[in-house]
Amino acid sequence: MAGSTFGSCFRVTTWGESHGPALGCVLDGCPAGLPLSEADIQPYLDRRKPGDSSVSTARKEDDAVELLSGIFDGRTTGTPISMMIRNTSQHSADYGNLADSFRPGHADYGFDQKYGFRDYRGGGRSSGRETAARVAAGAVAAKLLSEFGISLRAYTIALGEVKLPEGAASSLSLEELAERSANPVCMPDTELAEAAVRSVALAREQKDSLGGIVECRIEGVPAGLGEPVFDKLDARLGSALFSIGAVKAVEIGDGIAAAASRGSENNDCMRMKDGKAAFMTNHAGGILGGISNGAPILARAYFKPTPSIYRPQETVNENGEDIVLTIAGRHDPVVVPRAVVVVEAMCALTLADLLLANAGARLSSMKKLYL
Amino acid sequence: MAGSTFGSCFRVTTWGESHGPALGCVLDGCPAGLPLSEADIQPYLDRRKPGDSSVSTARKEDDAVELLSGIFDGRTTGTPISMMIRNTSQHSADYGNLADSFRPGHADYGFDQKYGFRDYRGGGRSSGRETAARVAAGAVAAKLLSEFGISLRAYTIALGEVKLPEGAASSLSLEELAERSANPVCMPDTELAEAAVRSVALAREQKDSLGGIVECRIEGVPAGLGEPVFDKLDARLGSALFSIGAVKAVEIGDGIAAAASRGSENNDCMRMKDGKAAFMTNHAGGILGGISNGAPILARAYFKPTPSIYRPQETVNENGEDIVLTIAGRHDPVVVPRAVVVVEAMCALTLADLLLANAGARLSSMKKLYL
Amino acid sequence: MAGSTFGSCFRVTTWGESHGPALGCVLDGCPAGLPLSEADIQPYLDRRKPGDSSVSTARKEDDAVELLSGIFDGRTTGTPISMMIRNTSQHSADYGNLADSFRPGHADYGFDQKYGFRDYRGGGRSSGRETAARVAAGAVAAKLLSEFGISLRAYTIALGEVKLPEGAASSLSLEELAERSANPVCMPDTELAEAAVRSVALAREQKDSLGGIVECRIEGVPAGLGEPVFDKLDARLGSALFSIGAVKAVEIGDGIAAAASRGSENNDCMRMKDGKAAFMTNHAGGILGGISNGAPILARAYFKPTPSIYRPQETVNENGEDIVLTIAGRHDPVVVPRAVVVVEAMCALTLADLLLANAGARLSSMKKLYL
Amino acid sequence: MAGSTFGSCFRVTTWGESHGPALGCVLDGCPAGLPLSEADIQPYLDRRKPGDSSVSTARKEDDAVELLSGIFDGRTTGTPISMMIRNTSQHSADYGNLADSFRPGHADYGFDQKYGFRDYRGGGRSSGRETAARVAAGAVAAKLLSEFGISLRAYTIALGEVKLPEGAASSLSLEELAERSANPVCMPDTELAEAAVRSVALAREQKDSLGGIVECRIEGVPAGLGEPVFDKLDARLGSALFSIGAVKAVEIGDGIAAAASRGSENNDCMRMKDGKAAFMTNHAGGILGGISNGAPILARAYFKPTPSIYRPQETVNENGEDIVLTIAGRHDPVVVPRAVVVVEAMCALTLADLLLANAGARLSSMKKLYL
Repeated sequence: MAGSTFGSCFRVTTWGESHGPALGCVLDGCPAGLPLSEADIQPYLDRRKPGDSSVSTARKEDDAVELLSGIFDGRTTGTPISMMIRNTSQHSADYGNLADSFRPGHADYGFDQKYGFRDYRGGGRSSGRETAARVAAGAVAAKLLSEFGISLRAYTIALGEVKLPEGAASSLSLEELAERSANPVCMPDTELAEAAVRSVALAREQKDSLGGIVECRIEGVPAGLGEPVFDKLDARLGSALFSIGAVKAVEIGDGIAAAASRGSENNDCMRMKDGKAAFMTNHAGGILGGISNGAPILARAYFKPTPSIYRPQETVNENGEDIVLTIAGRHDPVVVPRAVVVVEAMCALTLADLLLANAGARLSSMKKLYL
Repeated sequence: MAGSTFGSCFRVTTWGESHGPALGCVLDGCPAGLPLSEADIQPYLDRRKPGDSSVSTARKEDDAVELLSGIFDGRTTGTPISMMIRNTSQHSADYGNLADSFRPGHADYGFDQKYGFRDYRGGGRSSGRETAARVAAGAVAAKLLSEFGISLRAYTIALGEVKLPEGAASSLSLEELAERSANPVCMPDTELAEAAVRSVALAREQKDSLGGIVECRIEGVPAGLGEPVFDKLDARLGSALFSIGAVKAVEIGDGIAAAASRGSENNDCMRMKDGKAAFMTNHAGGILGGISNGAPILARAYFKPTPSIYRPQETVNENGEDIVLTIAGRHDPVVVPRAVVVVEAMCALTLADLLLANAGARLSSMKKLYL
Repeated sequence: MAGSTFGSCFRVTTWGESHGPALGCVLDGCPAGLPLSEADIQPYLDRRKPGDSSVSTARKEDDAVELLSGIFDGRTTGTPISMMIRNTSQHSADYGNLADSFRPGHADYGFDQKYGFRDYRGGGRSSGRETAARVAAGAVAAKLLSEFGISLRAYTIALGEVKLPEGAASSLSLEELAERSANPVCMPDTELAEAAVRSVALAREQKDSLGGIVECRIEGVPAGLGEPVFDKLDARLGSALFSIGAVKAVEIGDGIAAAASRGSENNDCMRMKDGKAAFMTNHAGGILGGISNGAPILARAYFKPTPSIYRPQETVNENGEDIVLTIAGRHDPVVVPRAVVVVEAMCALTLADLLLANAGARLSSMKKLYL
Repeated sequence: MAGSTFGSCFRVTTWGESHGPALGCVLDGCPAGLPLSEADIQPYLDRRKPGDSSVSTARKEDDAVELLSGIFDGRTTGTPISMMIRNTSQHSADYGNLADSFRPGHADYGFDQKYGFRDYRGGGRSSGRETAARVAAGAVAAKLLSEFGISLRAYTIALGEVKLPEGAASSLSLEELAERSANPVCMPDTELAEAAVRSVALAREQKDSLGGIVECRIEGVPAGLGEPVFDKLDARLGSALFSIGAVKAVEIGDGIAAAASRGSENNDCMRMKDGKAAFMTNHAGGILGGISNGAPILARAYFKPTPSIYRPQETVNENGEDIVLTIAGRHDPVVVPRAVVVVEAMCALTLADLLLANAGARLSSMKKLYL
């Protein structure tokens, strides 16, 4: 069944494989009147590019976005925004030996069982390249959110065993986070970033790979976003983040630690501050009962280590034979740094969708629109 | 916007508050011909009932389900199954002092900001009572899954600081898990369960509350369920589990630990076994690239401690005044034991939906149906 | 697959058969703050009741609606509104001889082929009784629309061969239409209504049945509702009206006649009137390019004659035998008068949904809501 | 709100304006394994091209489709199929005088009211060019349907006042219909087609335009497609056909005539024929209670005359002034012949979607897939 669409109101559909001529997305439901050009989108795609050779693949991916529809005189028209990115760097030959064997840690076996065969070149739709289309759409979402005073930033908080100390990120503003994570691993701490780069290099030497944790902080979200019951803000964020290939856990606020804490510690008490209700702590990560409470939203995605490693691994092939597989080609020893902007994009898409979805929550608000 | 519906093909819509006359759900899309009666559903609701007084509220909730439609001659007809549970135990008076103040850790403030006012009696739609409707629907999903050899069981693996040792659950069969977790905290270990009961009692004495972790194991899932990209099996499970009120983190397989491991450790290698491809380990928790791989699925939901505690807490009220609030009424010092069957229900609903969604994946399968 | 839900933002799911204990609907997405009680809904259900014995069945259907959720202190809370109507008048025995034969003109054969069997009592889900749930939901939609100055009314314009002259309805106000169609056939012309009653009586005598045409006029719709391309206002109205069992054609504005006219005749020219752009004619029926243009919306539904007639008819049974079937039981010789309020309800549901869907059309409007 | 997606299981999203660089669609949910190449799609696009200069615009539209994703080794992979058509013939200069005035009979005014402004070049999204994307998707749907023995054909049955006699089309096979309607007006009768061509020429001379009626016949549809209640086969077809810009009425089977007939005439009786249940007549047009009954499906779309005519017309402009507008540019005096394949495409998309949606109707069918 169709599964390539995310969102109800602000709705993106992605398409494309790493080895076809192009990939892209259609974004439907963006309000009319938003100033938008390729210059708003390209920087996000650039953040997704393989960076410093120490941490990522030698592939050259020059992802240039083309805006094909939905813009007139520099503003969105309210109709679908089609964006396309040409594939320029595919090397089909590299994947020859994967045609009939199942790479450990990959979706190969599942795809084969589901569809009867698969496009084995670069993983087909399960390729990380698909996320380029999400990043393009996420850039539009972020632009829309900025019109409402909502801003967000993702950054690496752990890479392999190198981990940012508790509270280190929370003491930085979004601007500081952006500045300080401008390094090959997107970690907002110069020293730790260097340690992380070294640990990636080591893993690569050992023909191995690393995982890590990406955090996204979203500020300026008005209280009231998210829908009770199934479309809770955290349910949508959870869905958004788990839809990124290598994510194996998602956490909101104190999440995991909260499960071992007590109500008296974990409850965020409130006080009036500058005439407004404010939370004295933010264990909840900005979401209570699935609804934003006005405090910064904190979401964390846990990435498994890249499954493609250069060591020989035991697996089976389509003929039902035990084999030992050595994967050639070019692979990132860690996807985390490149996934940072993907996490940010998915959070932006989620928030933009719920911002629109919330428009009809109150009769009195609706009246402001129409009467 | 409407947010009370879960699923695309096997689709449940829940309704009702704790203080209205009833609550329930409509389940649309269940295939025709499934034998079904109230006797299939009631046991699931009974598992959700407040249990031993040591760990839960003194409220008496006798949730009797009524099947109102969609059944003929003891089988589903393919049309909507409406299920209703009467509310018999509401005490509106208890909630009087909450009408205009925002309970810490609750959705009160967000609801107020969203809708302009709220049904403060028992939390309205954010009440845990809403989950009774999900459990009823989940029972039908589980029945459907059982026809395809898919079975599942949820159980507590941590309650406050009492935690099942790593690997303790995985050595037990689903039947053993069911048997051994037949205790007030649903923990599949007699000694630890007793320790957990004591720790709940202590928390209650201290006017405090506890959180915990619930795990669900799903066996017999064919490889191939889940849709690439946004409707990945883990994205749907993530959404399903985060939609449960107090869940703050979700983990699939080794999830959190995987982020700190290496590819060579985390990849599940394959070998042929009894003529079938099999995974030698299951770090992935049965899901790769968002598609089931045939191994048991392992999902974990992290619950924060119950926000309603009997200690006075600092908060604000609707008039923008700082107040100290003491919550009266009856509250569970921990929701985890009662949430176990809710986790199971949400997993069952997710799998049933994706089982149906997968029907059209291959032309050759579709031909089996029609030609 | 699930097919019992209508609408995206203002979303109703109906459930129930004529021979179960009850039927009803869940309405999700209604904005919070709308004053609502059973007294708003019951009059619509009363309009659907079998009327004067001359034109309808002798069944007594006393459809009393119960509001089960989503209301607090007399206003909607923004959460699902569950409504239930008990079935009080089912006579299963009457349908005995239909269990294994396919009634001509009914959905029996299709249901059997689809599901492998069917609830033959009263047609199951294809029974006209299902529409009672829609009428209840439509009453809420109409109440919501009235808050925005949108009002609507449906009435019979043809019954069998008795037809209102072209233009007769358009010269009447909505209030006049309501008053004048307060007769057993809902036709806004006393003399023609009497002729229609006689022609129903004649058809009944001849053990035959009649069809007819229902028109709905919707006034006060702001220009701009409906979405370009697939969710055009007329596409949604078309879907809404064709979803009523016996409807075999739907027409917007001059519809059928327009196909034989010329552009110079059919185009509605515009002039300024009282400082506002206005259409000089309304051949388009208030919709251009799928978007409302501010003129009154005119939709027409063509109903086939009731398939249940008392004459013996040739058909086949489940054993593959040719048979002659005589249908017993109580049947309306014409469904049109009772369907009038169903048409109105479906139009109201469509407009309410698109009113909400349009909320996010412009960035500037969204800013009014949030900033 | 997003409105550019059609279908639930077999789901197409279109994008693009006539004056952007390209337009296209993404088709998600097509089963894996369907042989597919551009050669399957191009002939459908060619049928949509402006034909003989006597009946259509002088524009040269050479719509060449590019398949960008979802195909591997000549077969669909089960993942999104992206198709793009470059715009090669846009003349923005032609539309200069339309920038601030509202063309009678067009969506201009509604778009402006909805979005605050509009892409006035060629009508933006309300342009007929958008349908090229639907035709490409419809070609894939038709290919899929053909694998299940379902075939369909649309043709003109009326153009202005020239009308095919009742029953003339129904006596022809689908192949004969295809052959005989290979003329500039797609009317399956040589003489009438010539008369129609003359009548278009006359309308053009008179600076006027014509409407018409397109019929689509679908054969080989198994009984059981369509979902009870809101997703009835006719509700979906109605939605599909009304979503085509100029359609103002839709009719199934005897539709309009049925409303004036009697049950004894309109009911289709059944007899066994060659061991199968068969209908002796087909007044219902193959659909009863919203479910296909195995008889050929007959749907008719009524098109209004093209609103763009060369005569001066009264209208208003954005400054609120009464003006007289003369439209320049190139316009078809009738859209019907080019819309024939669009009708066919929308019917194919509807059937393909419901064919997939029906897969989960029965437990026993689902078991065939999985067990």
